[in-house]
Amino acid sequence: MTTPIVPELMSAQAFAPFGDVLEVAGAPDKIINQGLCRRYHDRAKLDFGDGRAGVSLFQAQRREFPLMLDMVERHPQGSQAFIPMTLVSFLVVVAPDAGGVPGQPLAFLTDPGQAINLHKGTWHGVLTPLSEPGLFAVVDRIGMGANLEEHWFDTPYVIAGPPD
Amino acid sequence: MTTPIVPELMSAQAFAPFGDVLEVAGAPDKIINQGLCRRYHDRAKLDFGDGRAGVSLFQAQRREFPLMLDMVERHPQGSQAFIPMTLVSFLVVVAPDAGGVPGQPLAFLTDPGQAINLHKGTWHGVLTPLSEPGLFAVVDRIGMGANLEEHWFDTPYVIAGPPD
Repeated sequence: MTTPIVPELMSAQAFAPFGDVLEVAGAPDKIINQGLCRRYHDRAKLDFGDGRAGVSLFQAQRREFPLMLDMVERHPQGSQAFIPMTLVSFLVVVAPDAGGVPGQPLAFLTDPGQAINLHKGTWHGVLTPLSEPGLFAVVDRIGMGANLEEHWFDTPYVIAGPPD
Repeated sequence: MTTPIVPELMSAQAFAPFGDVLEVAGAPDKIINQGLCRRYHDRAKLDFGDGRAGVSLFQAQRREFPLMLDMVERHPQGSQAFIPMTLVSFLVVVAPDAGGVPGQPLAFLTDPGQAINLHKGTWHGVLTPLSEPGLFAVVDRIGMGANLEEHWFDTPYVIAGPPD
């Protein structure tokens, strides 16, 4: 049994090696609509390779701590953005690549109002809402060819709940 | 003074001439993640012309009925999807094109959990949340060249609250 993984709070800096955090933090890039709307412009590094962008909806089952992490996956052909459609936290699991297999996974707990974009090819756990209805918009690659690689761990990891 | 516009409930059928409704209605297109997640696949007709897709966040001021509608705009170079990041209704105003100017506007009230995608070149009102914090993810065109056309009405329209 490995040491449980303890989620850390999501931040743009800590998540930078894996993807982007989309949030209304700091000054907006533009004020539009006669002053009524703040635009935080073009905050995700999208890459759909030879495919195109699509918007899909995901509805995923709510999960509870402690979580068993037996698999991570990656999409070698495209980035994947997860936009929560409810103002709640969700869990994001990622892992660095270590020579074609995932290294030690990390877990992040988002703040309500944060969306994330996984860069192309980033190892990650499946979508993990912590509350109902688990509704997300997903911006990812639509196209032909294999775009899913799974890695099953010989020994699953355990992800503990966040510290109080 | 024109007759007030009364919002109708958003539906994919009624909205079809203007854009797409993204919602988890009916059977999912795929079940993924070992049965834990329902994917409603590729539900928006995206078109970014000679530009590329981007994801931005919009934070817009909450509005109240009755609303004054003095302007609609369109983006001749790209579609624009609005994904609410809170589980609430918002108001969508669109208008058919009538020879290069907007015709009679229509107003729609979304159900919580619905996102919408305006097709390229569709006349529409500015983003109109009806509750705080007015937080949306927007998938639209990033690129060079003019992509905003505004039309100011000689006589503003009034949008009434929905019928009880």
